[in-house]
Amino acid sequence: MTTSPDSVVREFIAEHTPAFLDDLAAWLRIPSVSADPARAGEVRRSAEWLADKLRATGFPVAEVWETENGGLPAVFAEWPSGDASAPTVLVYGHHDVQPAAREDGWANDPFEPVVADGRLYGRGAADDKGQVFFHTLGVRAHLAATGRTAPAVNLKLLVEGEEESGSPHFGALIREHAERLAADVVIISDTGMWSESTPTVCTGMRGMLECQIDLYGPSQDIHSGSFGGAVPNPATEAARLVAGLHTPERRVAVPGFYEGVVELTAQERELFAELPFDEAEWLSVAKSRATLGEEGFSTLERIWARPTAEVNGIWGGYTGPGGKTIVPADAHLKLTFRLVAGQDVDKVRQSVTAWVAERLPAGIRHEIVFPGATRPCLTPLDHPALQSLARSMGRAFEQKILFTREGGSGPAADLQDVLGAPVLFLGISVPSDGWHSVGEKVELDLLAKGVETAAHLWADLAGSWDSTAR
Amino acid sequence: MTTSPDSVVREFIAEHTPAFLDDLAAWLRIPSVSADPARAGEVRRSAEWLADKLRATGFPVAEVWETENGGLPAVFAEWPSGDASAPTVLVYGHHDVQPAAREDGWANDPFEPVVADGRLYGRGAADDKGQVFFHTLGVRAHLAATGRTAPAVNLKLLVEGEEESGSPHFGALIREHAERLAADVVIISDTGMWSESTPTVCTGMRGMLECQIDLYGPSQDIHSGSFGGAVPNPATEAARLVAGLHTPERRVAVPGFYEGVVELTAQERELFAELPFDEAEWLSVAKSRATLGEEGFSTLERIWARPTAEVNGIWGGYTGPGGKTIVPADAHLKLTFRLVAGQDVDKVRQSVTAWVAERLPAGIRHEIVFPGATRPCLTPLDHPALQSLARSMGRAFEQKILFTREGGSGPAADLQDVLGAPVLFLGISVPSDGWHSVGEKVELDLLAKGVETAAHLWADLAGSWDSTAR
Repeated sequence: MTTSPDSVVREFIAEHTPAFLDDLAAWLRIPSVSADPARAGEVRRSAEWLADKLRATGFPVAEVWETENGGLPAVFAEWPSGDASAPTVLVYGHHDVQPAAREDGWANDPFEPVVADGRLYGRGAADDKGQVFFHTLGVRAHLAATGRTAPAVNLKLLVEGEEESGSPHFGALIREHAERLAADVVIISDTGMWSESTPTVCTGMRGMLECQIDLYGPSQDIHSGSFGGAVPNPATEAARLVAGLHTPERRVAVPGFYEGVVELTAQERELFAELPFDEAEWLSVAKSRATLGEEGFSTLERIWARPTAEVNGIWGGYTGPGGKTIVPADAHLKLTFRLVAGQDVDKVRQSVTAWVAERLPAGIRHEIVFPGATRPCLTPLDHPALQSLARSMGRAFEQKILFTREGGSGPAADLQDVLGAPVLFLGISVPSDGWHSVGEKVELDLLAKGVETAAHLWADLAGSWDSTAR
Repeated sequence: MTTSPDSVVREFIAEHTPAFLDDLAAWLRIPSVSADPARAGEVRRSAEWLADKLRATGFPVAEVWETENGGLPAVFAEWPSGDASAPTVLVYGHHDVQPAAREDGWANDPFEPVVADGRLYGRGAADDKGQVFFHTLGVRAHLAATGRTAPAVNLKLLVEGEEESGSPHFGALIREHAERLAADVVIISDTGMWSESTPTVCTGMRGMLECQIDLYGPSQDIHSGSFGGAVPNPATEAARLVAGLHTPERRVAVPGFYEGVVELTAQERELFAELPFDEAEWLSVAKSRATLGEEGFSTLERIWARPTAEVNGIWGGYTGPGGKTIVPADAHLKLTFRLVAGQDVDKVRQSVTAWVAERLPAGIRHEIVFPGATRPCLTPLDHPALQSLARSMGRAFEQKILFTREGGSGPAADLQDVLGAPVLFLGISVPSDGWHSVGEKVELDLLAKGVETAAHLWADLAGSWDSTAR
């Protein structure tokens, strides 16, 4: 490590930060909520905005890619190195965001970003527009520091528009464009670090299987005095399904669910234990009053390395003011199963389907759909590209980098599988950033460290990792 | 039983039916919808109309009674027997009706009654104006048949105006007027019979305890990938409560719930079994595909004589289109417990409160409220007044009278408790009458049987039941 390039990078970033933040704010103003069909046009506008911005950044190629069946568009950009031996890097992120509305409790309009106290507030500030956008300034800082006119690596960006909806068309998209996406390494820019004072590199993500179950009992709401206690109640049956999801030890009770799970190694459990985990602080970030989970595992192990079953929504019957004495006609569940390396999405889907069918009584008709699935992924701690990433991040943060995993899910495993490339995770978000919540924000100093890490990484990767040897 | 008085009664009824139906139609034209604040004036007009009509019928006392807090008025009428030893009977009914509008699908204006095919169609025809009104002709037929100038019993009528709105002021009303309402027996004229071909007397109603439970986990919705599997989820816990409400045998699992329950006698079970119950037909009325309930009991026993716990509504988390990967901040349950004779409402409330509190894990805060309660009531089959009612009905219908109970709940138990009198149910409505539904009607031949039953009942009660011995 020399002082000179690091200072050049820092000065370049400081100089360009105001314009960079103005641009990011303009992007955050586009409410690209992929879950809301009424906002499909905004997702498209977000894609077009980004493609324009990447062209302005210097990428010679920046295209809006359509997805199949009228899905929401992704953005692809490419900037060849010019060096014959340069490795190819594909950076992944997403430009769609979670739903958000002022009425949910935001201090300001979630789509009208606000800078205050060193933070940028707004839906997508951290998840994931902010963390995609730091690469635009990062690559320019890399060029400024190295004096190059093109990156030291063949740099590709793929920014999808359906991540918050379970990436339904992402697999097909990357298979269709596998040749143009071909890379030696994939950098996922959609995760976080341990904390502002404990920078970390993430080594894997959980997968996810989304599930909606609709239960139908009487053909209309019926009087609970006249009929209650003598016919099946779909709300009761929905609740019994949920209650049956877990054993008393809070393991997932669906038979076959744990098949193939890659268990934690002793080394990983030791490294996790080095992290300054403070349960009270973690609970405060989790906005929760107590921990609860699978017996025999620590909180970090539960959220990073263990599969789960979670209820995201449940509804049925009368939910207004006062009472209504009915047996409801229907009840509904939205569930997500988080999966870890080694679990097979199709097998879990089959296990859940069979389990639900056999638990419902006669008289309850059901429908079960799995609107989306994302595979888990995991990169070994000793992979050279992972070491390169940790080194670049160490230069930006000027301290030792530890390792984590991500409990959330992204299409990392698809990229790993289709492109046959290892997946690394570069994220500067912190747990307090409020992903999917009211008041989502990004810390501006960390955003700058993200830019700086990206600025170092391309030269480090090109110089230290013999991609042809993999 | 002699032929003579029965023929006199029938002739008298036949002669006066046209005028009786004209009068009933006039009352049905008053849209006394208690749920609609804009129609409070119509409810008052209905009360005044009825008081006038009762005076015209011969009742020396007929008053409109106000209810507390500006509630809707009831009607009280009284016709003393003149015989020193005459028992006192209080007939209960209501003059308010459910909402109805032509746009709901009625063939005619629901407040413009129509006679067709031996039926009188209109809102309130069966529930409950028709069944209140048959007493006006009934008492005159009784006088005609017996040659009396006043009834053989001290006859009182209480016709409330808020039954379809949950009788919010009824308890206070009867406590305030307990002395004037004092009676040896209460006749509820607001129920139905098994069917047109199987006349029955109802012997009791289930009570009800309403309950709302609100569960709070994270202080806001949190990311199910980042935190799921490590903190308690209020939707999961709400579901676990519901699932825990019943044993695998579908008995209510709350400890102490069945304390005091008056079990069915062998005679009652035998008599219930004599009813021509057709499960397929019952399921079609219940709009359900299968029966399900407490093991060891028939469908009729389950809905009439067994207490239940029913989910009327459940909600928590994301319920919109698409998915939202959250651990929800809160989840909610609306439950009703149907109670049978012998159960103590306060004890059930305490049992449920304790049961909920001990089942929730650390980290889930909860609130539990019981917005309303109605006590159960039951009159034994061998009670002399019940025998008298069955006998009178047998004369009217000229066939054997069987017995039912009512699974729903009403203010009968209040009358029983406040007045210290047994409660009987005299109703001639049938399930096809469409209470609360589009096309409500009453069968004219059954309405005449109601008049006839009332005409026999007062003499039978006075002659066969020594009320001073109770």
